[in-house]
Amino acid sequence: MRLAELSERSGVPIATIKYYLREGLLAPGRQLNARTAEYDEDHLRRLRLVRAMIQVGRIPVATVRDVLGHVDDDSLPRTIRMGAALWALPQVPEPDEEDEYVGAAHQVADQLLESLGWSNAQALVTISPSYRSLVVALAALRRLGYDWDPQLLLAYARLMHGAAVLDLDFVETHGSEAERVETAVLGTVLVQPMLQALHRLAQEEESARRYGFE
Amino acid sequence: MRLAELSERSGVPIATIKYYLREGLLAPGRQLNARTAEYDEDHLRRLRLVRAMIQVGRIPVATVRDVLGHVDDDSLPRTIRMGAALWALPQVPEPDEEDEYVGAAHQVADQLLESLGWSNAQALVTISPSYRSLVVALAALRRLGYDWDPQLLLAYARLMHGAAVLDLDFVETHGSEAERVETAVLGTVLVQPMLQALHRLAQEEESARRYGFE
Repeated sequence: MRLAELSERSGVPIATIKYYLREGLLAPGRQLNARTAEYDEDHLRRLRLVRAMIQVGRIPVATVRDVLGHVDDDSLPRTIRMGAALWALPQVPEPDEEDEYVGAAHQVADQLLESLGWSNAQALVTISPSYRSLVVALAALRRLGYDWDPQLLLAYARLMHGAAVLDLDFVETHGSEAERVETAVLGTVLVQPMLQALHRLAQEEESARRYGFE
Repeated sequence: MRLAELSERSGVPIATIKYYLREGLLAPGRQLNARTAEYDEDHLRRLRLVRAMIQVGRIPVATVRDVLGHVDDDSLPRTIRMGAALWALPQVPEPDEEDEYVGAAHQVADQLLESLGWSNAQALVTISPSYRSLVVALAALRRLGYDWDPQLLLAYARLMHGAAVLDLDFVETHGSEAERVETAVLGTVLVQPMLQALHRLAQEEESARRYGFE
């Protein structure tokens, strides 16, 4: 297809597609002559991914380039590529390991993974940015004077495991035409804003149920 | 208590407390003489709230000032104050009502609230930024060529209602000394980063369970 059709089918304006091409987020089309290039279904799929990361995920262009570098690195096994791609997405700052609250938070996080029986996540603690994000969030709670209730943490973690099962089911039903690594990134980027909106709506609903509009 | 004790009990450096005082995020202490002011438990509680919003929630100072303005506005009923305070927290951009995908997303969102029986949330659709965030997220999905599966949306919404119940339980157990409006803001700000970290960890666990480290 030509650039105009790529724009029409993706809903992305031509000027924006040209910008993504210049920034190297989209591979060049097959050059038919000096002024015309041809694009295929792979371009369309990649364009949707880039668009989702930038517009829905609000991810900076340089980060998108990093993530795509991991997605395209077929020297690595698939699960490692998927991990590397997802881990290149924006994360919270590193925990300060000198901080006493961070040390205590590590213990709480490790105990939580143990209680959950998440042995795969346990195997990844030294390299997973998600684990480090959890430690940062737990340390912040404690620094503010809130104690962690292990039962409450377990309950939250089980809910989020339910969400992860739905995420991966969603990715699998849409994984036929695209590489699964690509759709996993898309799933993470697309689902998180929706989940956050649903969470706040649920808080409003539950709050009004408990306290009314007094 | 003096400034030094306020700093020690909150874990917030003195220079940072002075900055919050200058920015009007913290009320001045009771002036004992030209150089010494006295602070009380209300200051400590407010300082923790401000610190959580800025450091954990990464909320800009101007937005923190807006949120606190609503928290302190006792001309309004409590639920309205709580809503106003939570709604002043950062939100996604407004949906473009001219956009055909936004129109379709409104229908899907309305149908979802109907199926859930969230009558309070339904009563708030014209004013709730959380509802508008949901519409934006749904419109983005559709624009990228993904259809909404109503059953999948229902499943996600029920999980997030479970999280909201835990949130409000958490707020209630910590609501004795502080105003509930304040602790609701704190709960929203503190819980969201932890939930996001747990969500990504759960994705890693579930992904490794399904596909191994191949």
